[in-house]
Amino acid sequence: MSAAKTNSGRFFEDYRLGEVIQHAVPRTVQGGERALYHMLYPAQHALHSSDAFAQNCGLAESPLDDMIAFHIVFGKSVPDISLNAVANLGYAECRWLASVWPGDTIRSSSEVIGLKQNSNGKSGVLYVRTTGTNQHGAVVMQFVRWVMVRKGDLDAPAPDTVIPELAGVVAASDLVIPRGLDFTEYDFPLAGEPHRLGDYKTGEIIDHVDGVTLTEAEHMLATRLWQNTAKVHFDVTSRPDGQRLIYGGHVMSLARALTFNGLSNAQFVVAINAGAHANPCFAGDTVRAWSEVLDTAKTDAPGVGAIRLRLVATKGGAVGALRGVDGKYLPDVLLDLDYWALMPL
Amino acid sequence: MSAAKTNSGRFFEDYRLGEVIQHAVPRTVQGGERALYHMLYPAQHALHSSDAFAQNCGLAESPLDDMIAFHIVFGKSVPDISLNAVANLGYAECRWLASVWPGDTIRSSSEVIGLKQNSNGKSGVLYVRTTGTNQHGAVVMQFVRWVMVRKGDLDAPAPDTVIPELAGVVAASDLVIPRGLDFTEYDFPLAGEPHRLGDYKTGEIIDHVDGVTLTEAEHMLATRLWQNTAKVHFDVTSRPDGQRLIYGGHVMSLARALTFNGLSNAQFVVAINAGAHANPCFAGDTVRAWSEVLDTAKTDAPGVGAIRLRLVATKGGAVGALRGVDGKYLPDVLLDLDYWALMPL
Amino acid sequence: MSAAKTNSGRFFEDYRLGEVIQHAVPRTVQGGERALYHMLYPAQHALHSSDAFAQNCGLAESPLDDMIAFHIVFGKSVPDISLNAVANLGYAECRWLASVWPGDTIRSSSEVIGLKQNSNGKSGVLYVRTTGTNQHGAVVMQFVRWVMVRKGDLDAPAPDTVIPELAGVVAASDLVIPRGLDFTEYDFPLAGEPHRLGDYKTGEIIDHVDGVTLTEAEHMLATRLWQNTAKVHFDVTSRPDGQRLIYGGHVMSLARALTFNGLSNAQFVVAINAGAHANPCFAGDTVRAWSEVLDTAKTDAPGVGAIRLRLVATKGGAVGALRGVDGKYLPDVLLDLDYWALMPL
Repeated sequence: MSAAKTNSGRFFEDYRLGEVIQHAVPRTVQGGERALYHMLYPAQHALHSSDAFAQNCGLAESPLDDMIAFHIVFGKSVPDISLNAVANLGYAECRWLASVWPGDTIRSSSEVIGLKQNSNGKSGVLYVRTTGTNQHGAVVMQFVRWVMVRKGDLDAPAPDTVIPELAGVVAASDLVIPRGLDFTEYDFPLAGEPHRLGDYKTGEIIDHVDGVTLTEAEHMLATRLWQNTAKVHFDVTSRPDGQRLIYGGHVMSLARALTFNGLSNAQFVVAINAGAHANPCFAGDTVRAWSEVLDTAKTDAPGVGAIRLRLVATKGGAVGALRGVDGKYLPDVLLDLDYWALMPL
Repeated sequence: MSAAKTNSGRFFEDYRLGEVIQHAVPRTVQGGERALYHMLYPAQHALHSSDAFAQNCGLAESPLDDMIAFHIVFGKSVPDISLNAVANLGYAECRWLASVWPGDTIRSSSEVIGLKQNSNGKSGVLYVRTTGTNQHGAVVMQFVRWVMVRKGDLDAPAPDTVIPELAGVVAASDLVIPRGLDFTEYDFPLAGEPHRLGDYKTGEIIDHVDGVTLTEAEHMLATRLWQNTAKVHFDVTSRPDGQRLIYGGHVMSLARALTFNGLSNAQFVVAINAGAHANPCFAGDTVRAWSEVLDTAKTDAPGVGAIRLRLVATKGGAVGALRGVDGKYLPDVLLDLDYWALMPL
Repeated sequence: MSAAKTNSGRFFEDYRLGEVIQHAVPRTVQGGERALYHMLYPAQHALHSSDAFAQNCGLAESPLDDMIAFHIVFGKSVPDISLNAVANLGYAECRWLASVWPGDTIRSSSEVIGLKQNSNGKSGVLYVRTTGTNQHGAVVMQFVRWVMVRKGDLDAPAPDTVIPELAGVVAASDLVIPRGLDFTEYDFPLAGEPHRLGDYKTGEIIDHVDGVTLTEAEHMLATRLWQNTAKVHFDVTSRPDGQRLIYGGHVMSLARALTFNGLSNAQFVVAINAGAHANPCFAGDTVRAWSEVLDTAKTDAPGVGAIRLRLVATKGGAVGALRGVDGKYLPDVLLDLDYWALMPL
């Protein structure tokens, strides 16, 4: 038998600072993936639902949901980055740089930008900047994530510690607005709510009300669609408790879709400043979401503002409750995501 | 916290006779939605399965299944019409007026055509005529439904009672035949059965034989696809019994698809005369269907006839059994739908 | 009530040697079906995932996965061939002859090529050659399968026994290479693995490592998508044990997709030499796969070789373990498939 033919993943000592890893299997996305996104998530934001609405906002047609690009670019990195990961520790400096249109083919690569072996000598923290490009070579999105990765050979020497300097928040001036976007003719009734950027105040908390009870089939369909094949999501024998861990990105998409009720006009996700998967999520959990307005800003595009939001997904607990007195996430908190979206002024 | 940003739905006293409500979020449908329809339902009618078959019947390509238009137009009306509904009481005067093609964008609006407060003063019956239009402003379908809606303020005055006059049956002469439809070259073997309109006799009952056992994941995927986000379908905490109620339209599509076995040539649903969701449906139920031929008629289109059918979906019980001696639906009856379809002469 | 309108399936005595049966309901496939395939299976082979990758291999765009053609052609034959089948006994001489492109419409027909009544007089073995054609009349694939079919009338005379001569293996020289295919510029890193045909040795066994735990919803969605409506897959009342039998083709697609890990470059399935569904498969089973290299061959296309593989899907047991000392399949073996795929030299 040849185990040599299959990929058992890289270990911490296999990464070199500055190394660029081309991830396998480019993926063409089309209208079919858009339809699936509407089936898998309660996604209703009008710009991703209607070509006519998108055209009224200056775009050629409705681009694919921003999270589709994220999931594909992320999913392709899994076999090279996180197959032997113990934990997905954080995100930073995530920006969407070009829209993904039906027919585009997405590729993904990652550069190693930081390494720090843990003091126990058994694992280390790997920092990568992952980039998605389309068939024209244009960058469609980029993000930094850091993961804890096991060492395969405990005797391998520790690399020099390099921890990258990362922005705590993407500056509003660094947000990239989809080319042509114009909200001056924005149709609020069609979009679902009358609230414009000026109606949201920093510190305001919005309860998105709706909840979705998760099933095994749905999270596996979604995770598989993005060609993310990490075992823990699909194989009941891969965790001691016999449960299939739900892909953190599934919770991100679900929570973002739930924000429609209260944030119908937060039309594009253009940056993620930070993100944490606070607790694991399993089938049977009923997921709800609340948001906190963190900031607002103007942009150069006509009628287009930016809103910075904290999006929290939970499986219970009070709206607005995030951390305990010990500073740790409450046990019912699933996701804490800090992002920028675009909204009509 | 701001609850004001989210939609808690309208109450009975919030509706005014003659008011027209534009429902939010237009939706573009494409081939992806067609593929999903074939995955979610055992849909096999040839005109909606094959471009080549549709072209042989005078159409440019295969239009989207009639029920896709219904579900989208209906789903969009839910946040404005039935979020606080106690019950969906009935349908009438439902007609498909123009085919929906891949690439079309569908919008939905409803006119309040009737109001009647209940004698208990706690709720009332709301009658609306809901209209779906495409990106060219053409009406693709229209239907009347009436729902019982809770009052939010029990002290609000009762409106004048207006009950609209509704046709018990859409007259055959009022059916709209898809433009260009021509069944003179109809290929019966490819369609699946040799039976033409003349082979069906009024009063005839057809057992469609096949059954499908429902799962939670499938009904949620389907309901979500049509952007129908009513809580009871998705959130186990929203009903006292902890069950997710299956969207009545899911049962309609499933039952219609099951009629393929015995009614392969009933190719288009062009009108719904009346409909009742007789009993709730839950995951685990095994759904079967039977039909009764109610009428047949000619149309002006070449080779095209119309057949009026009663479609009954059940989770058990004898074929043909509909009501008990008390006149009420038997407990195993899920759906009683009276509709017109087109069939080759 | 009229049972005469519905199809209760053919019995063994209803088939005549040489008879050609046109199966009903042509089916148009598009990008939506491709997206669904990626959602239902962990399919990652680059040629079916990326238009850009396919273009780099000399093709106009990414054709639909080979198994989509198989499932559609097979599914259409079910109502005429295997509705009253006791068992699906085998496959032979299966070849893919033309690619299926988005927009193609597939039809299916079967010729009766063999009949042998069983000695018990209650059933017989039916051999058919099933052919799928596209809207231009070109044959896209063809396969022989044989099934055991019940007799409806036990007094019906036995037909003359005719057992067709079938090739044990499709000769490498009979494989049809997709027109234009050229692997001379093949991008191994993008495809996922560096292994070319010369790296695989006859007798080598590959453990594909990954496992997928099955759910009811997913196998029903997949089976329904191919318009295969055999009752046992959908209706819990159709088997004495109350379980839904998983369509054998679902296991084939799943196992083929799992081979990506170790056989990333086995890009097209071009022939099936033989196949057996060794044991039934149910929701809850965790499916894994292993492969044995049976042969390699050259082809006339530039840079394109062929690899003959045994693909075994299991729900447990050791890699490489296939049959017991009694020569019978081990109880954990689900599928034993002997096929040819194309691989860069």
